[in-house]
Amino acid sequence: MSSDNSYVGSQLYKIRHSAAHIMAQAVLEHFPEAQIAIGPPIEDGFYYDFDLPRALTDEDLAWIENRMKAIVRKGVSFAMREVSPDEALAFFKDQAFKRELIEDLVHGRTDENGEQIAAPAAKLTFYTQDTFTDLCRGPHVADSREINPDAISITFKKPAGAYWRGDEKRPQLTRIYGTAWETVDALQEYLTRLEEARKRDHRVVGERLDLFTFSPLVGKGLPLWKPKGAILRDTLERWLRETQIENGYDPVVTPHIGNLNLYRTSGHYPYYKDSQYAPIQVDDDEFLLKPMNCPHHIMIYKSEMRSYRDLPVRYAEFGTVYRYEQSGELTGLTRVRGFTVDDAHLFVTPEQLVDEFKAVVRLTQYVFNTLGFSDFRARVGVRDPKSDKYVGSDANWEKAAAAIIEACDSLGLNYHVAEGEAAFYGPKLDFIFRDVLKREWQLGTVQVDYNLPERFELEYVAEDGTRQRPIMIHRAPFGSVERFTGIMIEHFNGAFPVWVSPVQAVLIPIADRHGAYAAEVAKRLRGIGMRVEVDAGKARMGAKIAVAREKLVPYMLIVGDKDAAAGTVSVRLRTDEDLGAIPLDEFVEMARRVIESKSLELR
Amino acid sequence: MSSDNSYVGSQLYKIRHSAAHIMAQAVLEHFPEAQIAIGPPIEDGFYYDFDLPRALTDEDLAWIENRMKAIVRKGVSFAMREVSPDEALAFFKDQAFKRELIEDLVHGRTDENGEQIAAPAAKLTFYTQDTFTDLCRGPHVADSREINPDAISITFKKPAGAYWRGDEKRPQLTRIYGTAWETVDALQEYLTRLEEARKRDHRVVGERLDLFTFSPLVGKGLPLWKPKGAILRDTLERWLRETQIENGYDPVVTPHIGNLNLYRTSGHYPYYKDSQYAPIQVDDDEFLLKPMNCPHHIMIYKSEMRSYRDLPVRYAEFGTVYRYEQSGELTGLTRVRGFTVDDAHLFVTPEQLVDEFKAVVRLTQYVFNTLGFSDFRARVGVRDPKSDKYVGSDANWEKAAAAIIEACDSLGLNYHVAEGEAAFYGPKLDFIFRDVLKREWQLGTVQVDYNLPERFELEYVAEDGTRQRPIMIHRAPFGSVERFTGIMIEHFNGAFPVWVSPVQAVLIPIADRHGAYAAEVAKRLRGIGMRVEVDAGKARMGAKIAVAREKLVPYMLIVGDKDAAAGTVSVRLRTDEDLGAIPLDEFVEMARRVIESKSLELR
Repeated sequence: MSSDNSYVGSQLYKIRHSAAHIMAQAVLEHFPEAQIAIGPPIEDGFYYDFDLPRALTDEDLAWIENRMKAIVRKGVSFAMREVSPDEALAFFKDQAFKRELIEDLVHGRTDENGEQIAAPAAKLTFYTQDTFTDLCRGPHVADSREINPDAISITFKKPAGAYWRGDEKRPQLTRIYGTAWETVDALQEYLTRLEEARKRDHRVVGERLDLFTFSPLVGKGLPLWKPKGAILRDTLERWLRETQIENGYDPVVTPHIGNLNLYRTSGHYPYYKDSQYAPIQVDDDEFLLKPMNCPHHIMIYKSEMRSYRDLPVRYAEFGTVYRYEQSGELTGLTRVRGFTVDDAHLFVTPEQLVDEFKAVVRLTQYVFNTLGFSDFRARVGVRDPKSDKYVGSDANWEKAAAAIIEACDSLGLNYHVAEGEAAFYGPKLDFIFRDVLKREWQLGTVQVDYNLPERFELEYVAEDGTRQRPIMIHRAPFGSVERFTGIMIEHFNGAFPVWVSPVQAVLIPIADRHGAYAAEVAKRLRGIGMRVEVDAGKARMGAKIAVAREKLVPYMLIVGDKDAAAGTVSVRLRTDEDLGAIPLDEFVEMARRVIESKSLELR
Repeated sequence: MSSDNSYVGSQLYKIRHSAAHIMAQAVLEHFPEAQIAIGPPIEDGFYYDFDLPRALTDEDLAWIENRMKAIVRKGVSFAMREVSPDEALAFFKDQAFKRELIEDLVHGRTDENGEQIAAPAAKLTFYTQDTFTDLCRGPHVADSREINPDAISITFKKPAGAYWRGDEKRPQLTRIYGTAWETVDALQEYLTRLEEARKRDHRVVGERLDLFTFSPLVGKGLPLWKPKGAILRDTLERWLRETQIENGYDPVVTPHIGNLNLYRTSGHYPYYKDSQYAPIQVDDDEFLLKPMNCPHHIMIYKSEMRSYRDLPVRYAEFGTVYRYEQSGELTGLTRVRGFTVDDAHLFVTPEQLVDEFKAVVRLTQYVFNTLGFSDFRARVGVRDPKSDKYVGSDANWEKAAAAIIEACDSLGLNYHVAEGEAAFYGPKLDFIFRDVLKREWQLGTVQVDYNLPERFELEYVAEDGTRQRPIMIHRAPFGSVERFTGIMIEHFNGAFPVWVSPVQAVLIPIADRHGAYAAEVAKRLRGIGMRVEVDAGKARMGAKIAVAREKLVPYMLIVGDKDAAAGTVSVRLRTDEDLGAIPLDEFVEMARRVIESKSLELR
């Protein structure tokens, strides 16, 4: 999820930041021996990390929340003052985490939230409210009475452990999350949204729908796709693959490992070493589990001499890549250690760049719209003018950014330009999707790259016979098939559009004697390519409907004597709508239309 | 390729074995300082490995071959005698390789060809002809005049280096291959077959048809599938996948790595360590690049409690696995380091075993027959009654072997029973295909396994409520998609059946003004799902036909004024047959019929 930049420094941001300090004050009153770490505002709330003498109980949390509200009601002011590093170290003589932060700040390694920064700080700032003082740059409310005590809640805790500085080798801390809003209604709406999100958590829904499983013996963050999940995935991939072929993409298939020298050439090694698995020694060579697909596609491009007449070359692959993530960061399908990118790399001439970029964006829009992911916006990531981390000429950067913006404008995209959000090798366009719960998810990306063609010395023969360098476009509408599926599960709450539903219809014969007719109907539906199950079990009709309803099967087709005699099916939708008995031909036509048109409706 | 057991010990086998000794004699006469290693008969010939003072020239080879023929013509007898180990060591005092072999023989490590055996040898045997004596168990011809000197040839050399004992860390030797036949005609037929095989080498044809490429920077033995190869592969996989779903298989998708403990449980580690890549350390765990898919599928089976009503469970996946092969052993697609198994694992009750096994064999037959791979035989691998390397009860072994044989009989399969060809965990059925050049290739396999269900403690609840252990069937008709594709390329010499051809038709407009009509025809053909290209280039018609012919495109559709006016296409087949101008509708119907029926014919 990504949040809008307008949040940082806003009144709500200050309220949450101040609530975090008040929470730390309450915790220190409750546990005077607690060590305090950091406590920033975050999207929808705030947290603070503590090293506590014992595990928290519900009673502790209730005491802390009540005490916070009392401090807020009492009315305490927030005062800032500058301190020297020595003064700060002396003040926090008993707080080891704070002393470490102060040292880092003074040496310019990180800021007071442990985030990496550049410049060393000569002066530090403290914020004090009531009896509590923290190392902090603010901003805060002036007075705690700006906070609505009835719109604060710390009643939830994240199950995953928080490590000091996010490092699994450092002490594990207790993170208390809180939230604060301007009104009770806003808090209530948020808590409702949270509860709704909890219910549609893709891990829970995925389990209920038999989509995937995890096995500690196989490994953390490595999903095993069960048959229904494999069908869902394959349906999405197959559709995207065919759509891409229609749009002039060529499929390729590459191995899951590559020689380390390939990644040295690309620059991915050692620069991204921390997010890669360790190399595997084979004879005298070292191999990496593929952290990305681009170098492999580049080697296919390079396997032949290319002419301007061959360009654009567009290579597409559902390429599985592996990235190291700390085990505490792993979450169902949305944070995994191995995932499949719906990847493609386009090799284009400078003259083709704008048109190809537009075509890529159009294809991405088509993909999202087809799936009903229509509430999305785009972010054009351009260089941070103050940074020198970028490679390539100014002229190329400007041309590329202009191409992206021209494409966005001409396609009427809802976009904004974000400085500093470019990749180091070129500007990019990110798609940010807002789901039915108004949560934002960053999905696919389209990137313009002048760097890899340079590093791999890619060429094509131009019309005038000279050797020229192509430009690369990297793009992946889903981004990760695993993550995208997770988001789809939550967005649809498991009730997928019919065309991607793993089971599209269940036949429910009322009694054993209707089994033959049910089988006949199933055969007819399979004949038009539908995925159909027949529930021929001993359970009663009501129980069978309940099972199919639970599995969110779009069409429940109940067949009894009348249906068998009249050639009808009694159709019940997963929305509980009852269509009654309709002629089989009519149902077949309806289902075919819904599936072929990839409709989001059931009829 | 696999050879029939009737070859070993036959007259042809003796002729080749004796020719190998005569070659060693000739080499020692030519290079008295040569060190001799081993020289066995092999399918279609023999070889001998030498450590020579310098690289061989064509003149050396001519000298050796002529000298061999002279020795043969002269008439030398082959005499066997028993020797003690000390006598043997003294005789070979200047031949270090032979001394190493003698030591191993005496300690029961290997035989005189360096193959692993069990029992130590108290007595060794020498074979002597003319001036040459070798450590050898025979058999040989009695007299060299049994060899036809005009049916010997050593004119070919394998490009890959041979290592002493096949170990890349030991000295690299010069392997001289030879062949010997009973008649000149047989030799000639063999050399013709070899030349034909060379011309249809899948590496050469694959390159010409743009199917795949290799990149040293990506890694040896790791094919990169170019667009046309990716389409060929995907067409095969998609068809097999759908066929499997129709036959009650469920697709699954699993990651390419697994925790080492998974393979410790399965027993694949450390027993198959030498053919696996080294483990990757991740946090406190080690991961292996998946050497096989079974343990992953087992963990999906184990993710739920299973009832007898759920069985058989049939999980299918095109699962890519990685095996270490020495770089000298790598050959195009047929010996690679990463390959995709068209894998499936069936979990069945004892009562289901025979029927499920039969169904698997039927599906395999269907797959081979559809592809025109109809000249195949089957080998039932059962236990070697003298060995104790097998796990599981005698009763289970007997039941499983009986099930396999019953299945083979009832399906009328051409099979033979081979003792000692079972896997250590159960008997199996291997399919051996004979291609148009009469070469035999081992393809898919079906295995019965009582071992992994035991090691993973798999269970299902039987009808009587007790917990029972399922039996597993492992099966893969292609075996490896990469290797199978390589064999297909050679068998068809690149002229694939139309339905799998990467490009099915090329439109060749005679002049620019026919471009619009060509595009219209292409659209019509794409509308029925055909893969069509339009050659709108500047080249002349004859040149365009030559290009399409070279790429083995099944249908070349030439369109000119008359065609555009009459709504026809002038059809030329890749067999050079000219069908003349036929109405487009008629061509569409013909192509549709050929493709939908998966015909091996073009019309």
